[in-house]
Amino acid sequence: MIVTIVHVKVKQEHLHEFIRATVINHEYSVKEPGNLRFDVLQNEGDPTRFALYEAYENEAASAAHKNTPHYLTWKEMVAPWMAEPREGVRYQGLMPLSRA
Amino acid sequence: MIVTIVHVKVKQEHLHEFIRATVINHEYSVKEPGNLRFDVLQNEGDPTRFALYEAYENEAASAAHKNTPHYLTWKEMVAPWMAEPREGVRYQGLMPLSRA
Repeated sequence: MIVTIVHVKVKQEHLHEFIRATVINHEYSVKEPGNLRFDVLQNEGDPTRFALYEAYENEAASAAHKNTPHYLTWKEMVAPWMAEPREGVRYQGLMPLSRA
Repeated sequence: MIVTIVHVKVKQEHLHEFIRATVINHEYSVKEPGNLRFDVLQNEGDPTRFALYEAYENEAASAAHKNTPHYLTWKEMVAPWMAEPREGVRYQGLMPLSRA
Protein backbone atom coordinates (compact mmCIF):
# COMPACT_ATOMS: atom_id res chain seq x y z
CA MET A 1 0.00 0.00 0.00
CA ILE A 2 1.30 3.44 -1.03
CA VAL A 3 -0.10 6.36 0.98
CA THR A 4 0.08 10.09 0.40
CA ILE A 5 -1.15 12.44 3.12
CA VAL A 6 -1.84 15.83 1.58
CA HIS A 7 -1.89 18.71 4.07
CA VAL A 8 -4.05 21.65 3.02
CA LYS A 9 -4.71 25.08 4.54
CA VAL A 10 -7.77 26.81 3.03
CA LYS A 11 -8.76 30.48 3.04
CA GLN A 12 -11.62 30.89 5.50
CA GLU A 13 -13.90 32.51 2.92
CA HIS A 14 -13.58 29.50 0.59
CA LEU A 15 -14.06 26.75 3.18
CA HIS A 16 -17.43 25.50 1.96
CA GLU A 17 -16.46 25.60 -1.72
CA PHE A 18 -13.30 23.66 -0.90
CA ILE A 19 -15.28 20.98 0.96
CA ARG A 20 -17.78 20.66 -1.91
CA ALA A 21 -15.04 20.32 -4.54
CA THR A 22 -13.13 17.82 -2.42
CA VAL A 23 -16.18 15.65 -1.74
CA ILE A 24 -16.63 15.36 -5.54
CA ASN A 25 -12.93 14.45 -5.92
CA HIS A 26 -13.42 11.80 -3.21
CA GLU A 27 -16.45 10.29 -4.97
CA TYR A 28 -14.53 9.79 -8.22
CA SER A 29 -11.21 8.83 -6.61
CA VAL A 30 -12.60 5.89 -4.60
CA LYS A 31 -13.79 4.41 -7.92
CA GLU A 32 -10.28 4.42 -9.45
CA PRO A 33 -8.72 0.96 -10.00
CA GLY A 34 -6.30 0.30 -7.15
CA ASN A 35 -7.67 2.95 -4.82
CA LEU A 36 -7.93 1.71 -1.23
CA ARG A 37 -8.85 4.88 0.67
CA PHE A 38 -9.47 8.53 -0.10
CA ASP A 39 -10.44 10.02 3.27
CA VAL A 40 -11.24 13.71 3.59
CA LEU A 41 -10.36 15.00 7.07
CA GLN A 42 -10.91 18.35 8.75
CA ASN A 43 -8.53 19.36 11.55
CA GLU A 44 -10.34 19.60 14.91
CA GLY A 45 -8.18 22.42 16.26
CA ASP A 46 -8.16 24.50 13.05
CA PRO A 47 -11.11 23.78 10.70
CA THR A 48 -9.32 25.59 7.83
CA ARG A 49 -6.75 22.77 7.84
CA PHE A 50 -7.47 19.49 6.07
CA ALA A 51 -5.71 16.24 5.37
CA LEU A 52 -6.46 14.07 2.34
CA TYR A 53 -5.53 10.47 3.05
CA GLU A 54 -4.95 8.75 -0.30
CA ALA A 55 -4.05 5.05 -0.31
CA TYR A 56 -3.40 2.94 -3.40
CA GLU A 57 -2.50 -0.69 -3.97
CA ASN A 58 0.73 0.19 -5.77
CA GLU A 59 2.85 2.94 -7.24
CA ALA A 60 1.23 2.78 -10.69
CA ALA A 61 -2.28 3.27 -9.28
CA SER A 62 -1.06 6.15 -7.10
CA ALA A 63 0.62 7.85 -10.08
CA ALA A 64 -2.41 7.32 -12.32
CA HIS A 65 -4.55 9.39 -9.94
CA LYS A 66 -2.65 12.52 -10.96
CA ASN A 67 -3.75 12.08 -14.58
CA THR A 68 -7.46 11.65 -13.91
CA PRO A 69 -9.89 14.34 -15.08
CA HIS A 70 -11.39 14.66 -11.57
CA TYR A 71 -7.97 15.26 -9.97
CA LEU A 72 -6.94 17.80 -12.63
CA THR A 73 -10.28 19.61 -12.30
CA TRP A 74 -10.03 19.65 -8.49
CA LYS A 75 -6.42 20.87 -8.57
CA GLU A 76 -7.27 23.80 -10.82
CA MET A 77 -10.49 24.66 -8.96
CA VAL A 78 -8.99 24.74 -5.45
CA ALA A 79 -5.72 26.52 -6.37
CA PRO A 80 -7.00 30.07 -5.65
CA TRP A 81 -8.54 28.91 -2.34
CA MET A 82 -5.24 27.76 -0.80
CA ALA A 83 -3.96 29.83 2.14
CA GLU A 84 -0.61 27.98 1.95
CA PRO A 85 0.95 25.68 -0.65
CA ARG A 86 -0.30 22.09 -0.33
CA GLU A 87 2.19 19.55 1.02
CA GLY A 88 2.07 15.86 0.22
CA VAL A 89 3.95 13.37 2.42
CA ARG A 90 4.51 9.86 1.05
CA TYR A 91 4.49 6.66 3.07
CA GLN A 92 4.90 2.96 2.57
CA GLY A 93 1.98 1.18 4.20
CA LEU A 94 3.30 -1.60 6.47
CA MET A 95 -0.13 -2.63 7.77
CA PRO A 96 -2.70 -3.71 6.78
CA LEU A 97 -1.04 -6.27 4.52
CA SER A 98 -4.07 -6.61 2.27
CA ARG A 99 -7.31 -4.92 1.32
CA ALA A 100 -9.19 -7.05 3.88
CA MET B 1 -15.53 9.11 11.68
CA ILE B 2 -12.94 10.38 14.18
CA VAL B 3 -9.32 10.16 13.03
CA THR B 4 -6.07 10.59 14.92
CA ILE B 5 -2.81 10.70 12.97
CA VAL B 6 0.04 9.95 15.34
CA HIS B 7 3.45 11.15 14.13
CA VAL B 8 6.38 9.15 15.48
CA LYS B 9 10.16 9.51 15.13
CA VAL B 10 12.05 6.37 16.21
CA LYS B 11 15.69 5.92 17.21
CA GLN B 12 17.47 4.19 14.32
CA GLU B 13 18.76 1.35 16.53
CA HIS B 14 15.20 0.46 17.63
CA LEU B 15 13.53 0.57 14.22
CA HIS B 16 12.82 -3.13 13.88
CA GLU B 17 11.62 -3.52 17.48
CA PHE B 18 9.30 -0.55 16.97
CA ILE B 19 7.83 -2.06 13.81
CA ARG B 20 7.29 -5.43 15.50
CA ALA B 21 5.55 -3.89 18.52
CA THR B 22 3.40 -1.66 16.32
CA VAL B 23 2.32 -4.52 14.06
CA ILE B 24 1.05 -6.32 17.19
CA ASN B 25 -0.78 -3.16 18.29
CA HIS B 26 -2.34 -2.99 14.81
CA GLU B 27 -3.52 -6.60 14.96
CA TYR B 28 -5.39 -6.02 18.22
CA SER B 29 -6.59 -2.50 17.41
CA VAL B 30 -8.40 -3.45 14.19
CA LYS B 31 -10.47 -5.91 16.25
CA GLU B 32 -11.74 -3.19 18.65
CA PRO B 33 -15.47 -2.39 18.37
CA GLY B 34 -15.83 0.78 16.32
CA ASN B 35 -12.37 0.67 14.79
CA LEU B 36 -12.40 1.53 11.07
CA ARG B 37 -8.70 1.76 10.24
CA PHE B 38 -5.39 1.38 12.02
CA ASP B 39 -2.81 1.85 9.28
CA VAL B 40 0.90 1.69 10.09
CA LEU B 41 2.89 3.89 7.69
CA GLN B 42 6.63 4.40 7.22
CA ASN B 43 7.81 7.72 5.77
CA GLU B 44 9.44 7.26 2.36
CA GLY B 45 11.92 10.10 2.77
CA ASP B 46 12.91 9.25 6.36
CA PRO B 47 12.28 5.60 7.35
CA THR B 48 12.68 6.47 11.04
CA ARG B 49 9.46 8.51 10.80
CA PHE B 50 6.08 6.78 11.01
CA ALA B 51 2.44 7.75 11.00
CA LEU B 52 -0.28 5.71 12.70
CA TYR B 53 -3.63 6.38 11.06
CA GLU B 54 -6.32 5.52 13.60
CA ALA B 55 -9.98 5.88 12.56
CA TYR B 56 -12.97 5.12 14.76
CA GLU B 57 -16.71 5.29 14.25
CA ASN B 58 -17.19 7.77 17.07
CA GLU B 59 -15.56 9.56 19.98
CA ALA B 60 -16.35 6.82 22.51
CA ALA B 61 -14.66 4.13 20.42
CA SER B 62 -11.65 6.39 19.86
CA ALA B 63 -11.34 7.12 23.59
CA ALA B 64 -11.77 3.44 24.52
CA HIS B 65 -8.64 2.56 22.51
CA LYS B 66 -6.48 4.34 25.09
CA ASN B 67 -7.68 2.00 27.83
CA THR B 68 -7.01 -1.25 26.00
CA PRO B 69 -4.27 -3.58 27.28
CA HIS B 70 -2.59 -3.68 23.83
CA TYR B 71 -2.39 0.13 23.62
CA LEU B 72 -1.06 0.45 27.18
CA THR B 73 1.51 -2.30 26.56
CA TRP B 74 2.59 -0.71 23.26
CA LYS B 75 2.86 2.76 24.81
CA GLU B 76 5.13 1.53 27.61
CA MET B 77 7.20 -0.68 25.32
CA VAL B 78 7.95 1.96 22.66
CA ALA B 79 8.55 4.89 25.06
CA PRO B 80 12.36 4.41 25.30
CA TRP B 81 12.62 4.01 21.51
CA MET B 82 11.22 7.45 20.68
CA ALA B 83 13.69 9.96 19.17
CA GLU B 84 11.11 12.76 19.65
CA PRO B 85 7.87 12.99 21.62
CA ARG B 86 4.92 11.50 19.70
CA GLU B 87 2.39 13.96 18.34
CA GLY B 88 -1.26 13.10 17.70
CA VAL B 89 -3.35 15.30 15.41
CA ARG B 90 -7.14 14.91 15.55
CA TYR B 91 -9.52 15.18 12.61
CA GLN B 92 -13.20 14.92 11.88
CA GLY B 93 -13.68 12.56 8.93
CA LEU B 94 -15.91 14.24 6.32
CA MET B 95 -15.66 11.41 3.81
CA PRO B 96 -16.35 8.53 3.56
CA LEU B 97 -19.76 8.91 5.15
CA SER B 98 -19.99 5.26 6.13
CA ARG B 99 -17.92 2.14 6.63
CA ALA B 100 -18.68 1.05 3.05
